[in-house]
Amino acid sequence: MTRTSGRAATRGPVLIVGTGLIGTSIALGLRTLGVEVWLSDPSPTSQALAADMGGGTQLPDVGSGRQPALVVVAAPPDVLGRVVVDALVRYPRAIVTDVASVKDAIMEDVRTYHRVDAASGGNLDQELPRYVGSHPMAGRARSGASHADGDLFYGRPWVIVPTEWSADTAVLAVRNLVVDLGGVPTELDPADHDRAVALVSHVPQLVASLLAARLAEATPEALGLAGQGLRDTTRIAASDPGLWTAIIAGNSGPIVEVLRQFEADLQRLLERLGAPGTSGELPIAPGAAGAVSRVITSGNRGVERIPGKHGDTPRRWGSLEVLVPDKPGELGRLFTELGDADINIEDLTLEHSARQPVGLARVMLDPAKLDQAEEELVRRGWRVATKEVG
Amino acid sequence: MTRTSGRAATRGPVLIVGTGLIGTSIALGLRTLGVEVWLSDPSPTSQALAADMGGGTQLPDVGSGRQPALVVVAAPPDVLGRVVVDALVRYPRAIVTDVASVKDAIMEDVRTYHRVDAASGGNLDQELPRYVGSHPMAGRARSGASHADGDLFYGRPWVIVPTEWSADTAVLAVRNLVVDLGGVPTELDPADHDRAVALVSHVPQLVASLLAARLAEATPEALGLAGQGLRDTTRIAASDPGLWTAIIAGNSGPIVEVLRQFEADLQRLLERLGAPGTSGELPIAPGAAGAVSRVITSGNRGVERIPGKHGDTPRRWGSLEVLVPDKPGELGRLFTELGDADINIEDLTLEHSARQPVGLARVMLDPAKLDQAEEELVRRGWRVATKEVG
Repeated sequence: MTRTSGRAATRGPVLIVGTGLIGTSIALGLRTLGVEVWLSDPSPTSQALAADMGGGTQLPDVGSGRQPALVVVAAPPDVLGRVVVDALVRYPRAIVTDVASVKDAIMEDVRTYHRVDAASGGNLDQELPRYVGSHPMAGRARSGASHADGDLFYGRPWVIVPTEWSADTAVLAVRNLVVDLGGVPTELDPADHDRAVALVSHVPQLVASLLAARLAEATPEALGLAGQGLRDTTRIAASDPGLWTAIIAGNSGPIVEVLRQFEADLQRLLERLGAPGTSGELPIAPGAAGAVSRVITSGNRGVERIPGKHGDTPRRWGSLEVLVPDKPGELGRLFTELGDADINIEDLTLEHSARQPVGLARVMLDPAKLDQAEEELVRRGWRVATKEVG
Repeated sequence: MTRTSGRAATRGPVLIVGTGLIGTSIALGLRTLGVEVWLSDPSPTSQALAADMGGGTQLPDVGSGRQPALVVVAAPPDVLGRVVVDALVRYPRAIVTDVASVKDAIMEDVRTYHRVDAASGGNLDQELPRYVGSHPMAGRARSGASHADGDLFYGRPWVIVPTEWSADTAVLAVRNLVVDLGGVPTELDPADHDRAVALVSHVPQLVASLLAARLAEATPEALGLAGQGLRDTTRIAASDPGLWTAIIAGNSGPIVEVLRQFEADLQRLLERLGAPGTSGELPIAPGAAGAVSRVITSGNRGVERIPGKHGDTPRRWGSLEVLVPDKPGELGRLFTELGDADINIEDLTLEHSARQPVGLARVMLDPAKLDQAEEELVRRGWRVATKEVG
């Protein structure tokens, strides 16, 4: 769990422009590694808070002649392009990156502002190669420096988005930053990035919200039948409206494209399932069962493509459902006893039902160890409800 | 965890008609409580398997004059109505119930078959009051007696669906069965039941499948950005197509009604978000941000209505994200140490990112114990990544 201090690949000083949640978290992570960090924010309060949390110091006087080696622009999307170009012009030896969650529009902004600057004397050849966009796929429910955390990026994907002009040295500097902070670097071009996040993040958010919205008028009795399936499919519908409206508004093109395909599939299903008529013993139209089956089968194929942990090809785990009394220490005992038997837990979910003082822990593990795990647990008095591979 | 044996409220003998997964699981649960169980299945192999597993004995000879006190019909939906009416006629003192996952059509079948029987001498007044439908909301990925388990219903909702003729004594007998098997009884009329399961189970299944189907042509790079949101929203898309096609085909009316409302909301969103134009700094049409915000806000309201565990009003938990090395015993140590500090884990999820030998355990607990929990963990060397209430 320890990270070797003082061994950062990132060369400082690093200037963080914008000391909100992401900017301050980057600052804190770099400080832990001993990198010199300078902080800058239009709000003096926010900048002072980030400094007080240990995120770094204010910019040195211009008179000192010191310049940052790397500038991380963590400003709001609507000013970000302008701030990136300003940094490229002001610090002629610095690499500059940003952390915006939508990239194509930012790249366009950078080009636009740069053309304006170039027309008034800026040097295109010296500036654009030093810019590389990026997007750390991490966040929290709350914003602001006070919720910042140097471990925020640990184990999370962090997309590096070079432009066509980006120099290799600039890409390498951003990659070093990502790895220093524990992120998992992935390189994508701006349009591919925006399509990818539409598909894996923005559309699932909207679909979960649309599904959860259907519960608004449900009876309490119906809601009492909710199981893990409904809880899982709607969990992210609890997300913050302000934050998500901004994210989705900034990436509407790719989102609309995916949503229209989703809608076409839904309409095809409804045409069949909603048609009157009977088919054999069933009160549905001929072809309806086939249409339903196609939807479920396509879903099977899609979900199988989501990579498993450690970037492995998705694989099948064995699973045990174990009844766990709802009191302190019982889950600990379960996992300790599996650990004692040298059985590693690959994944787990905990399910509670209404009005029961017992939960079901679903433990995923190596299928080859399934029988051994069951035996160990039963021997120690646990009730194993189900055992499956799949 | 022990259940008092020999104290079943259910009076036997209980005849199980249909020894698949559900029928055999009911049989095993009742046998554990010492209730006499008789087994009947058109497949002699399936019936013998259920008996070998300890589910009961075959039907006594007609000459014995013995009759069941309760008949549980766990036959496939397309023959279920006929089998229920047969049982009512053949065993004139028995209470009869079924376990089908869609109720309105079954009720109609029972009425239809019964009218046919009544015309040929059956006695409506003596037969229909003894029938009460039911639906245990439990299942497994695999079917058949060999996957049966007496604990299958433990802590799960089990809907009791009386007809307008059902006698109170019959409803009570079914309620006793549910409680004996550890299920959570809820009473609904057939149409309300079917609308409820469409909303909380069938539509979420189809929406998850439609969403996962969009991943079929995604690039590996895009899929590598998948986080917990995508995993949660598509998890149930891995469900069995055969089983789900039958379930959805049997409840198409209520499902289509909910899906059409979903589609109308989606179209309203797409009309705004897909319109060309710019709105302030954003490349979207005027009104688009408002439309997105309405979708997210409606989703917030819907998801807040899903009841929490123990049937409580949904409440906010505190949550800690803790970095956990991916090796045996570490999760056990985490939970044991929380247990030692008398802190109960209310819910948890385990998140892995691609290519990292460390997971993030998100532990939900009493917000009043959040600071204490963090302190205890940090003191013992854990890295707490985030701490939140909400």
